[in-house]
Amino acid sequence: MILGRVCGSIVSTINHEFYDNKRLLMVDRLSIDGKVTGNYLIAVDSVGAGAGETVLIIDEGNSARQIIGDKTAPLRSIIVGVVDQTTIQSI
Amino acid sequence: MILGRVCGSIVSTINHEFYDNKRLLMVDRLSIDGKVTGNYLIAVDSVGAGAGETVLIIDEGNSARQIIGDKTAPLRSIIVGVVDQTTIQSI
Amino acid sequence: MILGRVCGSIVSTINHEFYDNKRLLMVDRLSIDGKVTGNYLIAVDSVGAGAGETVLIIDEGNSARQIIGDKTAPLRSIIVGVVDQTTIQSI
Amino acid sequence: MILGRVCGSIVSTINHEFYDNKRLLMVDRLSIDGKVTGNYLIAVDSVGAGAGETVLIIDEGNSARQIIGDKTAPLRSIIVGVVDQTTIQSI
Amino acid sequence: MILGRVCGSIVSTINHEFYDNKRLLMVDRLSIDGKVTGNYLIAVDSVGAGAGETVLIIDEGNSARQIIGDKTAPLRSIIVGVVDQTTIQSI
Repeated sequence: MILGRVCGSIVSTINHEFYDNKRLLMVDRLSIDGKVTGNYLIAVDSVGAGAGETVLIIDEGNSARQIIGDKTAPLRSIIVGVVDQTTIQSI
Repeated sequence: MILGRVCGSIVSTINHEFYDNKRLLMVDRLSIDGKVTGNYLIAVDSVGAGAGETVLIIDEGNSARQIIGDKTAPLRSIIVGVVDQTTIQSI
Repeated sequence: MILGRVCGSIVSTINHEFYDNKRLLMVDRLSIDGKVTGNYLIAVDSVGAGAGETVLIIDEGNSARQIIGDKTAPLRSIIVGVVDQTTIQSI
Repeated sequence: MILGRVCGSIVSTINHEFYDNKRLLMVDRLSIDGKVTGNYLIAVDSVGAGAGETVLIIDEGNSARQIIGDKTAPLRSIIVGVVDQTTIQSI
Repeated sequence: MILGRVCGSIVSTINHEFYDNKRLLMVDRLSIDGKVTGNYLIAVDSVGAGAGETVLIIDEGNSARQIIGDKTAPLRSIIVGVVDQTTIQSI
């Protein structure tokens, strides 16, 4: 799983009923020190994430389908949580 | 899922009936600011995308098979939508 | 499978019962000579790994679900072992 | 899916009957302008591809197994077509 | 599939019976001209590969499970062959 920051949204015409009323967010991957990298992906939102929030993303189809609760949904990347806190240990 | 721009097409002799009459498009991945990167992939078109259009691609076999509606289709990358609008937040 | 070093943890609000009481660790991938690379991922802990420990990670959903013993769990990356010893041959 | 150029072959002793009499080819990924990149993979040939030919590769296990027609075959990368023509649009 | 050179082994405490008595090898990916790259992965050995040998690796869970003959095994990367010969064509 990966961490990213919500940085935008897209509007797309998709010919599959699964995507009706789904939010597609642009998420910028975060570096280990919490900075945006410019390396983004497009993920379906399952948690109501807003712009600027740090989110946890699962980038695997079967996991995404479990979160959605639809075994036939065509998707790979999904936002599964808003990250409340990140603790980095100094080792 | 990823964003790309349709930049070409290929003609290939493929020994599997699934590929009869399918369009195989070359899609150049887009950077977060919407520029082409030269990092491309070959995707089956499911939406009638044209040259120069920005498209949403799912790069996962099971999702692609759901879009096509054929559980046995051999494919991994599929264009699922034409992107009408991208909104980037300044945060 | 890959090697990493546990470098932090995250607290996230996830809307799926699987994640109740699960530890989500930040793991920094190790280079071949055992140094951290800054290229991290977020993995569920299945072994009680602690900060600074070297761990083995499987980054595949079906494997992760087998380790957890739950075929419907939405996850991709899991820590499956603490690495006790690494032996590099000079060849 | 990706494009590559056949640049070699390997002979390997593999302990699984699937690989009896299969050709394993080394395929060099092509850049968007059709040049070899040195970033290669090993793929099973399903089309009789020859050295120097441009080929289409699917790098996904389930697709590869569909092409082979064997649900239990252990493989991930397969050459599915010889590319007859690539058309790049100037946009 | 990819080529690598066995460069080490790891000893890990893994809480899943599948890993009892399995060898976990560190394999350094090879460049197209047969040199080690430092970009390694950890793979289960299914062929008795030794240090310094060039091996073929399948990095896909379902393939790995087929090689092992255990549909429930949690693993992704497996060494499936020792490479006896690589032939690179000059084109």
